[in-house]
This record gives sequence, C-alpha cells and structure tokens, in this order.
Amino acid sequence: MGRVDYYDDPAAPAPNSLVPAASAIVVDEAGRILLHRRRDNEMWALPGGRMEVGESLAECVAREVREETGLKVEPVSIVGTYTDPKHVFAYDDGEVRQEFSICFLCRFVGGSLTVSEESHEVRFVEPDELDDLPMVDSIRLRITDYLSGRTPVIR
Amino acid sequence: MGRVDYYDDPAAPAPNSLVPAASAIVVDEAGRILLHRRRDNEMWALPGGRMEVGESLAECVAREVREETGLKVEPVSIVGTYTDPKHVFAYDDGEVRQEFSICFLCRFVGGSLTVSEESHEVRFVEPDELDDLPMVDSIRLRITDYLSGRTPVIR
Repeated sequence: MGRVDYYDDPAAPAPNSLVPAASAIVVDEAGRILLHRRRDNEMWALPGGRMEVGESLAECVAREVREETGLKVEPVSIVGTYTDPKHVFAYDDGEVRQEFSICFLCRFVGGSLTVSEESHEVRFVEPDELDDLPMVDSIRLRITDYLSGRTPVIR
Repeated sequence: MGRVDYYDDPAAPAPNSLVPAASAIVVDEAGRILLHRRRDNEMWALPGGRMEVGESLAECVAREVREETGLKVEPVSIVGTYTDPKHVFAYDDGEVRQEFSICFLCRFVGGSLTVSEESHEVRFVEPDELDDLPMVDSIRLRITDYLSGRTPVIR
C-alpha cells in the first residue's frame, strides 16, 4: 500500500486516524544506527510500527524490530514521544493517520540482520552517513534527539 | 457510562480496543499529588484521558488536566509508559479497552481547582494518605513509580 508523508505542510489532508505505534533506536558496538529502507515510500526509517490489541508497547517494539530487521531486542529507555498532529501519513485507502510513535532505545538480545518484505535493505548506518540518506523529517528528528543525548523528549 | 476495571484477572474479557491516552502527575509545593474521584467507577485517579485527533500528547494531557481539575499545566518529563494488555476497562457498550497511557510529570502553570462533571471531588493528596484511598491498581502503580524516583519506566 502506498503512503505519502506530510510534515507541517499546508497542503496536507486533515488527519482522521490515531493509532498507537512504537519505533526503535538500535545501536551497534560501533555506534551505528539500525535503519531499513521501506518499500512503501522508499525512505530510510527506524524500525517500528503499529501496536496490536493484546500486546504491550514493549512487546510491540520488539516484534516490529524482529519482523523488519531479524534482530531480537528489548527496550531499555525512552527516546521520546512523537505525536505531532502536523505530521500525517496519507494512505491509498483514504486513511490520514497522524503521527503517534513512542521511540525506545533498545538493546540487542539476539538474531541476525534479515530483510523483510517491507524493506529493500536493512543495515547499521554510520551517523556521518545519515545526512545523505532520504528520510522523512519525523524519523530524522528521532535520530537527532537520540544523538543529542538529551532524552526523553516530549513532542 | 459505567466502567469496570480488571487487572490481571482471569475473568476479564478480552480487549477489543486500543486508544492512546495520557495521564498526569501534578505535585504541589508540599509534595502532595493531584487526584480526583471519578464518577464512573468511584475510584480516586490521576487526571488524564484519551487523545483526540488533531492534538499532540502534550496538548492532550494539558487539556485533560484542565477539564478534570481546572488547573493549567504543561508536561515536563515522562513518568512512564503504561500499556499492560492484562489491564482492561470494560464499558457498558461492549468496548473492552486495554490500558494505554503515557504518564507525564506536569508543572503548574495557572488556574484553580474546580470539580468537573466527571468527578465528585478533586484535591491534592498527601502521599501518606494514598494507601487509604480506593484506587485501581494501574493508577496506584503510576504514583508508586513516580514516588520511587526511578523514572521513566516502560510498562
């Protein structure tokens, strides 16, 4: 399903949907950050996704990272709350979902990197390389917040 | 509308709804905690409630505190994420909502204490008095986490 992201854009459609989700910062021993390139919008992103009924937010973020990257992780701290109603995702079916993601710093527990059907590529990225990768503003903000060391943030 | 809370209870109905919400710890200069006694379940609770499309989570918690207590506040830090699928609220209309609340420590900005239609009473409560007040487990846990000083927690 295609998706278009709008960030503080007067041309954006009004949101009509609010869905809790979680995202993950996973860092390797060299300080590189785990990213994948999404098939739905071709952008590089943190792993994450919507929460399902019956799971906790910690279980959600661990499941999404495992599904999208093959790695087993567990959340250890909160990077921030990302709930800007001016950031919306418009889907093909008419849903206009406003951003709602709680971003967690996660530690590696096991598994190995695997590309899923949702991604073209998954790898750990050097912080120096981030500026050159296509990425939506809201994902870049979470990484910048993490790298600032001043977390958790409320957004 | 009536509401029954279940916490880790084998007799609880399965959740069928997931709604993002925020709750607030507001503390006065004497270290007392802002609580209100809810009309829907007769329990003492932190102010808070569900997020609306078009607002951020920070706007949600400020709005809920203002509506339920008359005080104007703003969130300054995160107490924790409270998303235990074993804690559910069963409403009269068949909705069984699982817990999803991000709890914020908030600072006082203005206003004065006012009881809303949702509450019988609203006041700042001494920590010593908390054990004697009827309160659902999940609310008590947020207060205990706050008082522990080891926040934010991921639950």
